[in-house]
Amino acid sequence: MATETSEPFQIPETSVGLVETQTATLFAPPHPLKTEGGSKLGPIQVAYETYGTLSPARDNVIFICHALTGDAHAAGYHENSNRKKPGWWEDFIGPGKGVDTDQYFVVCANVLGGCMGTTGPGAINPETGERYSLEFPVVAINDIVRVHHELLRTLGIDRVLAVVGGSLGGMQALEWAASYPNDVGAVIAIASAANVSAQSIAFNTVGRRAILADPQFQEGRFYGDQGPRYGLALARMLAHITYLSEASIEMKFGRRLQDTEKLTYNLLKETEFQIESYLHYQGRRFVERFDANSYLYLTKAMDYFNITESYGSLSDAWKDSTARFLIASYDTDWLFTTSQSKEIVTALNQTARHVSYIEFQSPYGHDSFLIECEQLAAAVRPFLAQTYSSFKLPEKNQKTN
Amino acid sequence: MATETSEPFQIPETSVGLVETQTATLFAPPHPLKTEGGSKLGPIQVAYETYGTLSPARDNVIFICHALTGDAHAAGYHENSNRKKPGWWEDFIGPGKGVDTDQYFVVCANVLGGCMGTTGPGAINPETGERYSLEFPVVAINDIVRVHHELLRTLGIDRVLAVVGGSLGGMQALEWAASYPNDVGAVIAIASAANVSAQSIAFNTVGRRAILADPQFQEGRFYGDQGPRYGLALARMLAHITYLSEASIEMKFGRRLQDTEKLTYNLLKETEFQIESYLHYQGRRFVERFDANSYLYLTKAMDYFNITESYGSLSDAWKDSTARFLIASYDTDWLFTTSQSKEIVTALNQTARHVSYIEFQSPYGHDSFLIECEQLAAAVRPFLAQTYSSFKLPEKNQKTN
Repeated sequence: MATETSEPFQIPETSVGLVETQTATLFAPPHPLKTEGGSKLGPIQVAYETYGTLSPARDNVIFICHALTGDAHAAGYHENSNRKKPGWWEDFIGPGKGVDTDQYFVVCANVLGGCMGTTGPGAINPETGERYSLEFPVVAINDIVRVHHELLRTLGIDRVLAVVGGSLGGMQALEWAASYPNDVGAVIAIASAANVSAQSIAFNTVGRRAILADPQFQEGRFYGDQGPRYGLALARMLAHITYLSEASIEMKFGRRLQDTEKLTYNLLKETEFQIESYLHYQGRRFVERFDANSYLYLTKAMDYFNITESYGSLSDAWKDSTARFLIASYDTDWLFTTSQSKEIVTALNQTARHVSYIEFQSPYGHDSFLIECEQLAAAVRPFLAQTYSSFKLPEKNQKTN
Repeated sequence: MATETSEPFQIPETSVGLVETQTATLFAPPHPLKTEGGSKLGPIQVAYETYGTLSPARDNVIFICHALTGDAHAAGYHENSNRKKPGWWEDFIGPGKGVDTDQYFVVCANVLGGCMGTTGPGAINPETGERYSLEFPVVAINDIVRVHHELLRTLGIDRVLAVVGGSLGGMQALEWAASYPNDVGAVIAIASAANVSAQSIAFNTVGRRAILADPQFQEGRFYGDQGPRYGLALARMLAHITYLSEASIEMKFGRRLQDTEKLTYNLLKETEFQIESYLHYQGRRFVERFDANSYLYLTKAMDYFNITESYGSLSDAWKDSTARFLIASYDTDWLFTTSQSKEIVTALNQTARHVSYIEFQSPYGHDSFLIECEQLAAAVRPFLAQTYSSFKLPEKNQKTN
């Protein structure tokens, strides 16, 4: 019998390598963030990572916006974590990749209201010495973006070459260009929308209900206890269905059974079909890493997001923006549909913004932006290169002199 | 000020009028039902209703199969209930309607495992004197159909002119023709499938999880207590989303707010958007009328249903059937899709069965079969008339002589 040898893990050369999450403290008294909802919040800690090298002109910054349950760890590997588990967009960010860290200085930060190092409902409220829980204010995407904009400012970066994101990250990217029309060279919004559909609100409200109805929710003061594990897992299981296309579920699982050859006729066997087992696994795994309160806050921010309402009309939102836009959707994505992306493109065309649009073919539904990185890179690389060449024009560099 | 006068409710002339639910007791000892899962069950009470008049030749029987949460009360009005609330398919069944009670004798019965008068998990187990709860055997669609076939036999009906149903009701109709190839003159299966998709199993498993994870579930022994109200409501809210098309949710609710003019920035306001309020209302209403255990059993039966597996192949399932088939789907139904209906049609064509297929245009998604009754009637009326004319041929009447 051969003995198993555990070879030391080698970080691939195509990776940005070992990275560390850093933290900045912003909006310290007496300058709190005034949120869209009218609350004051501060100080705010922001967890972020950077990859690549900032150019002397500080003109090569690409800000990455993560999706609902993502974090600042977009690429590379952490020293003391599972070395085989890289950042969530590892296939897209790195030397020679879609977002090329040999050329660009990449920043990714956890969102306000999140639970991965940036201040959220699980953080200590300095006024009470206890965790915020539901005393944390309801935040909007606009608040999230303002915190990230402030982060870059404290890093000495006034303008970004591009803001890139998928799903909720794409919504942030769209908001960046609307909030800071002169500070963004390009927006790349993938599998995104100017507002979520009523159907998405419906799914989100069911997910939130699952958490709120869990007796372990305890009005949000569950820290230290087990928390609403069942509710959060349920919310994740449901959301996960919406991330996959019907065809990809059929292809990957179909009606195959998990452990048995025949139907068990056992009502309590919850993982009889492979798809059931898969979803239960996803639910269990999710509760290990995510805060149920953050889930409530961030889905609410997603539901609230509505560029049309915030700016009067969709085309007005970006009428002053000097950004170039790359809008991308996936043909099998039924959560953030092609027609929602096209709505953005139409609005941008109405004010003669520079906009490129691509509908990718992919079987993977909404998750495609995390999976089909080569396809995405083929569109993003030249778009960024072109943006960079015009972004570096002398008159644009004034601020860095 | 005018005094409100409550005019006595007049049952419309287009209705079958006042009806009563009746009960039959079947499979009494020593002849229990042997279920697909290998259990023995009996006696079994079956709640049913009839409309119209049985012809002397007993050749004008149309059996209606209800969907997941339906019941025997398909048409007409009950004496002591809310007189303004007729049977669930009132617009489709009645004098001169799609299923014309001036011509046909219509029978509808609650399904085995249900909670509307037919034996299910909430019924008393005669062996223990207590409610079955989870000791009730897991039943298959085939078991449901066998109980209903036996009901008709005890009513003196050996052959039915047609079996008609939508959704889970359509699955039963398909199973009727496979189980009793010579006893069914026609099958009308609307918004149905030979098996549910993996995506449907996914939604069902999340719904079941919501019930099972509710602390009030108490391993199914919740009768007399409040029961898993939150879990059942949640399951219903989720299922309800899948019954509607994305476009119909957008059209009916969009992003409109329920009680407020502006966003509240209140995390605990669960019914801020109209779609949220609607789903919460649907959930609350559902728990008043439905047994959570029945919901578990019937969704399981739906997931298990697989004609291909039961009969070796889809075309083999109906190769001996003398029935004429009308298969119908709705273009916006994403739960039971057109392609699932076409799969049935293809299989029927492979063995040269008599099959008509229609894809209806309707904005209402899966629920269309309950809403678009005129459209449905226009296809069903002539199909039934044609079936009846051949069904009455002398040689087919032998059994009634």
